Amino acid sequence: MKIDHIGIAVKSIEDSLGFYEGVLGVEQAGREVIEDQGVTVVLLPADESRIELLEPLSEDTVVGKFIARRGEGLHHVCYEVDDLTKKLDDLKSRGLRLLDGYPRRGAEGRLVAFVHPSSAGGVLVELVEKRTEGEG
Amino acid sequence: MKIDHIGIAVKSIEDSLGFYEGVLGVEQAGREVIEDQGVTVVLLPADESRIELLEPLSEDTVVGKFIARRGEGLHHVCYEVDDLTKKLDDLKSRGLRLLDGYPRRGAEGRLVAFVHPSSAGGVLVELVEKRTEGEG
Repeated sequence: MKIDHIGIAVKSIEDSLGFYEGVLGVEQAGREVIEDQGVTVVLLPADESRIELLEPLSEDTVVGKFIARRGEGLHHVCYEVDDLTKKLDDLKSRGLRLLDGYPRRGAEGRLVAFVHPSSAGGVLVELVEKRTEGEG
Repeated sequence: MKIDHIGIAVKSIEDSLGFYEGVLGVEQAGREVIEDQGVTVVLLPADESRIELLEPLSEDTVVGKFIARRGEGLHHVCYEVDDLTKKLDDLKSRGLRLLDGYPRRGAEGRLVAFVHPSSAGGVLVELVEKRTEGEG
């Protein structure tokens, strides 16, 4: 198992970079708007994993509502899997509650799906399919 | 920067292992009681990082109160630093709010310190000193 990234909900990516760049000394990797999920995303390299800062495009988005309800902070963990479709079928057969029954496109155009926190001990879990050779 | 581990607050380590062992296919690394922090800890290997499951020893502990207030879920992120004392001095000089002004012993006997969430964008951040050669 590999942690692809940790998603952190922030009000402002600009303000948050002070901590990650200044204090932890990481460099910003890339910025991307994911309209589908209502967020602007910045990925910060952390050895083999990344920190994903998520800034909501508006208050009326999943991350905007999360911040209104719980404040800024840890939002989700994303694990890498070899074959996402196969993994989702496996999870369905185990009776887990999924937010996405089928893979969809997430950050960096990769295939992702979310598992409901109620099936993962209160943690919002994202699964991402491993990059194939030559990709990314 | 390297993510040493992600700390997840759980009511029961036994119950949570079903998800991590069964669904994610990880194997349990080791179990440790940290009286000082009022938790039982299990570290699950995740490539170069680990998932740390934290089960409170009682309701009247930091993690016990966290679960009562917010439910099970993501609790903290731990980053590895080269020299913890030097890093803490640096953070103090920047005016960051620390929960530990000086390194103390955490899981696996390693030197750790926590940064207050108010100084880290709502995230409880733990810092751990890098293992020296021949250690651990």
